[in-house]
Amino acid sequence: MTEAPNFDYAGRVARARNAMEDFGFDVLLASLGSELPYLTGYQAMPLERLTMAVVPRDGDATLVVPELEAPRIERHDDVFDVRAWGETEDPIGIVADLVGSRSRAAIGDRTWSVFLLGLQAALPATKFASARRLTAALRLVKEPAEVDLMRLAAEAVDRVAARLATHQFAGKTERRLSREVIDLTREEGCETVDFAIVASGPNGASPHHEPDERVIGPGDSVVIDFGGTIQGYHSDTTRTFHVGEPSAAYREVYEVVRAAQAAGADAVHPGVEAQAVDAVARRIIADAGYGDYFIHRLGHGIGLDVHEDPYLVTGNSQQLGPGMTFSIEPGVYLPGRFGVRIEDIVVCTDDGVDRLNRSPRELVVVS
Amino acid sequence: MTEAPNFDYAGRVARARNAMEDFGFDVLLASLGSELPYLTGYQAMPLERLTMAVVPRDGDATLVVPELEAPRIERHDDVFDVRAWGETEDPIGIVADLVGSRSRAAIGDRTWSVFLLGLQAALPATKFASARRLTAALRLVKEPAEVDLMRLAAEAVDRVAARLATHQFAGKTERRLSREVIDLTREEGCETVDFAIVASGPNGASPHHEPDERVIGPGDSVVIDFGGTIQGYHSDTTRTFHVGEPSAAYREVYEVVRAAQAAGADAVHPGVEAQAVDAVARRIIADAGYGDYFIHRLGHGIGLDVHEDPYLVTGNSQQLGPGMTFSIEPGVYLPGRFGVRIEDIVVCTDDGVDRLNRSPRELVVVS
Repeated sequence: MTEAPNFDYAGRVARARNAMEDFGFDVLLASLGSELPYLTGYQAMPLERLTMAVVPRDGDATLVVPELEAPRIERHDDVFDVRAWGETEDPIGIVADLVGSRSRAAIGDRTWSVFLLGLQAALPATKFASARRLTAALRLVKEPAEVDLMRLAAEAVDRVAARLATHQFAGKTERRLSREVIDLTREEGCETVDFAIVASGPNGASPHHEPDERVIGPGDSVVIDFGGTIQGYHSDTTRTFHVGEPSAAYREVYEVVRAAQAAGADAVHPGVEAQAVDAVARRIIADAGYGDYFIHRLGHGIGLDVHEDPYLVTGNSQQLGPGMTFSIEPGVYLPGRFGVRIEDIVVCTDDGVDRLNRSPRELVVVS
Repeated sequence: MTEAPNFDYAGRVARARNAMEDFGFDVLLASLGSELPYLTGYQAMPLERLTMAVVPRDGDATLVVPELEAPRIERHDDVFDVRAWGETEDPIGIVADLVGSRSRAAIGDRTWSVFLLGLQAALPATKFASARRLTAALRLVKEPAEVDLMRLAAEAVDRVAARLATHQFAGKTERRLSREVIDLTREEGCETVDFAIVASGPNGASPHHEPDERVIGPGDSVVIDFGGTIQGYHSDTTRTFHVGEPSAAYREVYEVVRAAQAAGADAVHPGVEAQAVDAVARRIIADAGYGDYFIHRLGHGIGLDVHEDPYLVTGNSQQLGPGMTFSIEPGVYLPGRFGVRIEDIVVCTDDGVDRLNRSPRELVVVS
């Protein structure tokens, strides 16, 4: 297991307080999602007992946590106090007391709505808003140590992609191959494996296909989209393999996607708008006649969340800058026939782009 | 893979509409969490693109889903329409249009708060409240086919527990043993494995311990709490093993927990309050002098969620009834020393209780 870097949580909380000032918030409430691990190193369990950090702009931070989970917490006494609540206590009341008379609260996007509803009822004078802009401002540009962990996670999935090039595909169900990808990803060093889409033949036309009992066979295109984490930081890559020799029509689509992916990555530069990168790749696919079959944005930011800002999508005028990490993943999805997607994580640098994923993007024929 | 039963989604939606009438709601909004699979058979992906079913009391239900995930949906045209939204559309606006002038909305508890905030802004005249009471009323009493799936899932983890009794513990890290438990659980037929707590020695005093690099050795108590799903229905069981011969002091604690678990299960009967069952088990532990070390409720309901109503906790006067499924899981946690927990899922029957987990609860010594 990769050793945890000593992230400067006190510094991050100080930056969060400055950002609250900028965005007009008095307090930040962080529960599920990545704000909490980013600020405290602790990740809430996705269960019905409330875990929530209350970070006032002008006071001490407190981590409110179920008593039975308090022993899980690595203490950082300079960063936050811990308030453990017992099974017959009311955690909403505890958080409300800590918020007090503060009237402008930023709340983490993935906090369960039942907790937001409870807080709104308990704090009728407080206005709640999404913490997204606030936390994006903190987390959009990665620290070098964060990029290092993402590079390790990317290298792990690249080793899996390399092994898949000589892997047996034909005769296996998607579900089985997905299990094998998960096992390989763990073997190569990822601590959690979040997903392993295996979408073969016509199933490949469903970008988020759930691997099923379809048996992979000769003539199938197989989209494999997978990733895992190292110290909480995500990887995410897609390669599309072909079982046996592909047709000329298939090769044409593959090469269009490959060219779009290369052009998208090459378009990354400080100061370029996120939507402009999407447009570069989309244009190549549209010009080849497949515009109607590229049915999703070009990419998403990645870090402690597998999807986070910046999103590479029409309408997002966010300018890219050094230290931002995101995917470049064009695809073409032909209903009833097949799909092709190629995805790398890249980091915007001072003068261009650095690809964290480097496994071959050329068409690989498997058996 | 166990074949999916033909659940009567149309009937469930009809029952949901009746319950809306009872609880004073005009519309139910279901996103992440179990309301959506319960009503439609479809499970939302836990990502930033909104998936939400809009189920009006007085109109057709619509499943709003990201375009790229629409191919995942198994259609039930008699139950709901599908409204796929493209990457540059606004899903909050689409849901708001479907809600229209309806003023009392129930929203699933696990819906991300960012979506609730968006809907509150888009629908200022609509009052939002937790759907918990509404969906608990629907889902509290399981259909026989649901109990059948939970029984299969329980039998799968029982087979794992039986295999653990002859498994090698000493010399392995908690993390490795946890991986092995996950692999065994999958091998025994679970389709997803949600968790496998392995908490050895002093780590056992942390009920929700995250398995770490601690090497298990002679003299350790090892709490193993794990579960998986079959067709979306959960299992959840805990057994506590001892590596090598235990001390008399350990045996005493173990027997107290075992007696409390047996008494709790025996106390289950239609008409008994949930908190009364907790009290029966808690009394046994308190009388033995360990009351301060049983730091959580006795149990939780289980079904499509691993934790759901009814909760067996002080203050919950919900009367148990036939078809309710929940855990009975007392524990004693001695800081710096060890923990013991024993957990079974049971179903309340017409005249008592049926234990879904049946693996031995006697102290098992492993090597």
